[in-house]
Amino acid sequence: MSLSTKPYKGARDFYPEDKRLQKFIFKVWRQVAESYGYEEYDAPIIEPLEIYLAKTGSEIVDEQTYNFIDRGKRQVVIRPEMTPSVSRMVAAKRQELAYPLRLYSIPNLWRYERPQRGRLREHWQLNVDIFGVKSIYAEVELINLTDAIFKAFGANSTMYEIKVNHRGLINEILKNYLQLSQNSAYNVAKLIDRKAKLDKADFLDQLDQSLLDSEKANKVPEKLLSILDSKSLSDLPPALTKSDNFKQLKDLLSNLELDNVKYDPSIMRGFDYYSGIVFEVFDKSENNNRSMMGGGRYDGLVGLFGVEPISTVGFGWGDVTLVNFLKEHALLPQLKPETDIYVCLAGDIYTKAKDMISALRREGLNLAIDLTNRKLGDQIKSADKKGLNYVIIIGEDELKSAHFKLKTLKNKQELNVNLKELVNIVKHDSH
Amino acid sequence: MSLSTKPYKGARDFYPEDKRLQKFIFKVWRQVAESYGYEEYDAPIIEPLEIYLAKTGSEIVDEQTYNFIDRGKRQVVIRPEMTPSVSRMVAAKRQELAYPLRLYSIPNLWRYERPQRGRLREHWQLNVDIFGVKSIYAEVELINLTDAIFKAFGANSTMYEIKVNHRGLINEILKNYLQLSQNSAYNVAKLIDRKAKLDKADFLDQLDQSLLDSEKANKVPEKLLSILDSKSLSDLPPALTKSDNFKQLKDLLSNLELDNVKYDPSIMRGFDYYSGIVFEVFDKSENNNRSMMGGGRYDGLVGLFGVEPISTVGFGWGDVTLVNFLKEHALLPQLKPETDIYVCLAGDIYTKAKDMISALRREGLNLAIDLTNRKLGDQIKSADKKGLNYVIIIGEDELKSAHFKLKTLKNKQELNVNLKELVNIVKHDSH
Repeated sequence: MSLSTKPYKGARDFYPEDKRLQKFIFKVWRQVAESYGYEEYDAPIIEPLEIYLAKTGSEIVDEQTYNFIDRGKRQVVIRPEMTPSVSRMVAAKRQELAYPLRLYSIPNLWRYERPQRGRLREHWQLNVDIFGVKSIYAEVELINLTDAIFKAFGANSTMYEIKVNHRGLINEILKNYLQLSQNSAYNVAKLIDRKAKLDKADFLDQLDQSLLDSEKANKVPEKLLSILDSKSLSDLPPALTKSDNFKQLKDLLSNLELDNVKYDPSIMRGFDYYSGIVFEVFDKSENNNRSMMGGGRYDGLVGLFGVEPISTVGFGWGDVTLVNFLKEHALLPQLKPETDIYVCLAGDIYTKAKDMISALRREGLNLAIDLTNRKLGDQIKSADKKGLNYVIIIGEDELKSAHFKLKTLKNKQELNVNLKELVNIVKHDSH
Repeated sequence: MSLSTKPYKGARDFYPEDKRLQKFIFKVWRQVAESYGYEEYDAPIIEPLEIYLAKTGSEIVDEQTYNFIDRGKRQVVIRPEMTPSVSRMVAAKRQELAYPLRLYSIPNLWRYERPQRGRLREHWQLNVDIFGVKSIYAEVELINLTDAIFKAFGANSTMYEIKVNHRGLINEILKNYLQLSQNSAYNVAKLIDRKAKLDKADFLDQLDQSLLDSEKANKVPEKLLSILDSKSLSDLPPALTKSDNFKQLKDLLSNLELDNVKYDPSIMRGFDYYSGIVFEVFDKSENNNRSMMGGGRYDGLVGLFGVEPISTVGFGWGDVTLVNFLKEHALLPQLKPETDIYVCLAGDIYTKAKDMISALRREGLNLAIDLTNRKLGDQIKSADKKGLNYVIIIGEDELKSAHFKLKTLKNKQELNVNLKELVNIVKHDSH
């Protein structure tokens, strides 16, 4: 029996045309992150299980991680997210590093879940984190950076919406304003996090199950629904407008000069480590209505590694929903192959042609040589099948004259050029 | 108890200075591979176990893979090498792809082994493969490409040595010339593969154990040692010089215009899939005497996936021994941080300064803003600790005058400049 040619379920093979798109996305991510002073780091894809147990959230660790026991009997995980890794790294050099510390990475992450539109088992994720800034300028910078990345992909503010909330304000709503028991508050918080995925009846049903009878008698469902319907901070009951958390959110919104940011009281972000402002970005197209990226403040994570805690704000941005977004809004660029010229050889003259080919490579051109010694027509067909535009033919005559037949496959032109002319024509049109 | 800050054993954290070196290496690899017409691909880090069982070699699969059973009861592996993945991908699109097909990738690979100099559990590896070329021009191209990469890193031919051999010729030596039984031939082949890691006495001892008494009586050890001592093809017994395999090797050597290539009869490459010419590159420095990279022809692998086989030559080149090589020969470059300017804010003026900062970013400069509202001296210390050279200070005055104080930390200069002058100075000195 022969082996299957399929990639592992929920993961992708990247053929050159797929990889080209991925590299384009990574390049934009890198350029904008670096323009804001972020520096790239990386960590191993295998981490000890324990760094996820504390704060990631039990659903992810218990049901969705790829975890196993290694040959040395260690419990390890193929990372489902990057935040615990970067927190570990910062903790390891807590004293040596200079703050504010700006870090970014583009790791691949693994979660065992049912593959579906926008969710795969393996995805790549831009992770951006700033360490050592207590003020909301950290959140302001990360949201502006998010916006700058969307703009760098060619998007405008009608295509996506940035929603902000505050974990501390949610806690106040649940514990102080609605006076929920600790248990009810926990369950309701988890339910709010799932709200976008539930229809209204299911949400109400599960809300009912999450509350004590006394809480229901206290009209908690009505009060909560009214709060979740808030379209802006000014819709909140006056009792909530006096807290520091409320003021932080208000400050954040007034500092962001963006017309597509709004307060949304149901934005939670799943991870248990968020401690302050959280934000999430949604595609406004209805065909791609998933959360595209999100983040927030998690001041407590670095401290779990036995060092003094440090103020941290970060976000994660996956590649799968981003590609859907770019497709949906016709923002996918036309990307050319990296190869500039396909070189056909007339006869068995590879050895003789090597110096000429080296000379072209020294000019910065990327050249693929047809080494098959086939008929020229078949060689040219290969170039066409590869989506290449320029073909040169080298035979004994060309070696003597130092002129080439340059074929442009798109418009079926043919020119007789010398090396310098060839370089000019192709570079002018090149990436 | 707090969590450990160490990375998983045998794997590396990449802080920005480490990542910068890795990115430099990847950039050189990519540039040279693309100049030869190779296009980048990628595949999932998790693959089904079965694709390694057939041809990788039992030691790697049985003792060194990270394999486990996933939540769907599939036997999977964190890839220890890339060749089975790329073979699977080519088989999946056997008919659609255009040949010669040139592919490269820079995957991270995992092997469970004792970490030591030049060998870690996780490493990155440049994989370059050409599909669809039957002639030795494929090997010639890949060895020339290897050499071009060394040169692109600044190396010269006195620093490394390229050794070539032929699996077919080894088979002829073992089976026809030495007349070994199938079992002895297999064991001796494996032993030759380990030869560089054994001292002479151990090698002879294990050779003795690998042979039948009749073979020992036939002076096989003496004959084999004499062959393994060959410094060039002309040292081989005349009986071996008539085969096609010998002629291919001779052709290869005469086609390579390199002064550091030689025939070495003990080069085997561990993998079971090699079917023709194999090659390996060694650092000539005695402090780093491991094999640095290697490859060869493996015409049979794509065919295991149920399609027509295809001629293939490929190599793998790991990052760990390469870094050792670059260090050993003083070829490591000085790499600057990606951030061009550190911006200190005099007072709480982040909001007011944003337009000016955006204007500088639009000029293509990478700017890190100090958001801490500390004393200027402390802000400048952060810039220095980060290894940045240029610092500008923005306060109310600077916003009014549109001039900045530009400090150059290396030579402790201070200049008063406008935006245009600032851009000129920093870009002139930039990466």
